[in-house]
Amino acid sequence: MERESTTRLRVRYTEVDRMGVAHHRCHFVWFEIGRTEYLREAGLTYSEVEDSGTFLPVIEASCAYHAPARYDELVVVRTTLREVGAARATFAYRVEREADGRLLASGTTMHAAVDGQGRPRRFPEDLRRILA
Amino acid sequence: MERESTTRLRVRYTEVDRMGVAHHRCHFVWFEIGRTEYLREAGLTYSEVEDSGTFLPVIEASCAYHAPARYDELVVVRTTLREVGAARATFAYRVEREADGRLLASGTTMHAAVDGQGRPRRFPEDLRRILA
Amino acid sequence: MERESTTRLRVRYTEVDRMGVAHHRCHFVWFEIGRTEYLREAGLTYSEVEDSGTFLPVIEASCAYHAPARYDELVVVRTTLREVGAARATFAYRVEREADGRLLASGTTMHAAVDGQGRPRRFPEDLRRILA
Amino acid sequence: MERESTTRLRVRYTEVDRMGVAHHRCHFVWFEIGRTEYLREAGLTYSEVEDSGTFLPVIEASCAYHAPARYDELVVVRTTLREVGAARATFAYRVEREADGRLLASGTTMHAAVDGQGRPRRFPEDLRRILA
Repeated sequence: MERESTTRLRVRYTEVDRMGVAHHRCHFVWFEIGRTEYLREAGLTYSEVEDSGTFLPVIEASCAYHAPARYDELVVVRTTLREVGAARATFAYRVEREADGRLLASGTTMHAAVDGQGRPRRFPEDLRRILA
Repeated sequence: MERESTTRLRVRYTEVDRMGVAHHRCHFVWFEIGRTEYLREAGLTYSEVEDSGTFLPVIEASCAYHAPARYDELVVVRTTLREVGAARATFAYRVEREADGRLLASGTTMHAAVDGQGRPRRFPEDLRRILA
Repeated sequence: MERESTTRLRVRYTEVDRMGVAHHRCHFVWFEIGRTEYLREAGLTYSEVEDSGTFLPVIEASCAYHAPARYDELVVVRTTLREVGAARATFAYRVEREADGRLLASGTTMHAAVDGQGRPRRFPEDLRRILA
Repeated sequence: MERESTTRLRVRYTEVDRMGVAHHRCHFVWFEIGRTEYLREAGLTYSEVEDSGTFLPVIEASCAYHAPARYDELVVVRTTLREVGAARATFAYRVEREADGRLLASGTTMHAAVDGQGRPRRFPEDLRRILA
């Protein structure tokens, strides 16, 4: 069964736009925080991954927005690993309003593994083992 | 034939991450700038649209990243309107490096029309006429 | 004696620049989060303040940067109210690295009170009482 | 006589907050763009400065906000070099609304020179000559 990581965030003033709701770019920032915590719970920090010379840039990202997140609200980001292969990994995310559990947004990011010069490389074995 | 709007941007220091390339959230900000210029060239400013009580929140967004945009590079955002209906409009975007025309990213945003309280409404006639 | 509010944050990937450290704009975002928590601990949310028609825009801001905050580090923001008058309030902030307590940055923000149209107004009595 | 560099920017949707005006963090981003153009006009790009191993982190920053910058407005950033020494340089900035020339904000940033590991170093001679 797939593991799910849960992260709690409060919507920042700087994340809210003229409509009074979190701007759609912010959900990708929250996804990234969720992904970071997913890795941390698996025993590695993304900081260490990068320090060891592997970077995991986003090569595809998508999000569907179901309801607005408002300033100062608490939201919960639920992160799962959908798929991990030799050269690609895909994470899926759900953002919920903590107060009532309402689904605010859902999305995915697909990642490649590259070295410090941006050249494609295989996902390191330890990373694949932890993710699998 | 579909109209294309072209916007030129320089990658900001604040848009670049530890990998030295524009973070993937930035492309959605650039799409928004492209969309704003698309509307301006059609004769209306998004600021006026909002002042008249109609908001066009993003309900779906996606981007595929083909090559990195680096700090201080000039990029060109090409924006087209893919579809506009009674309640939805979809824009498509291509981000190119100005120096060599290389495609860096491509994506879409789908928008609903809502009033100031976030209630769905039809796209105003003048907006549909201008967009069509 | 002055009250101090303490807020804990983790440095986000999107806050870090090419140098691998938190960009200097981020400290002002952290100050704002510290200020929000200061008000919350005093019994009011800034969201409610704005909903009641009073806004507290920043009219002066400054920060001295003593040491870098790195990606994924935990930092502590210590917020105090330095002065509150009929028309102005000044908050002071210290940002420390949680791991060793090292002072990373210190700064201030001065705020005016305005109404929804940006016109100056006196600080509301209940706000002054809570802040005093 | 001191040289002044002029940069023109349009306020982005993502820069505007619930009050409908540019958030105070944005002025520091605009200062940075002004500083980059100041250097470019002097014949060097900040990108090249960093590639040669010198970084110029901000060690102090301040801004006074005189009037709001609104969404989609054009603003002009005027950048001057106030002082450059062996180990420090200070830039000053004025942000004006293009439409009527009104002063919106004024501020300064002080910079140190460091190497890639963040160790203090003297300002490189070529940089001092260009700045002086």
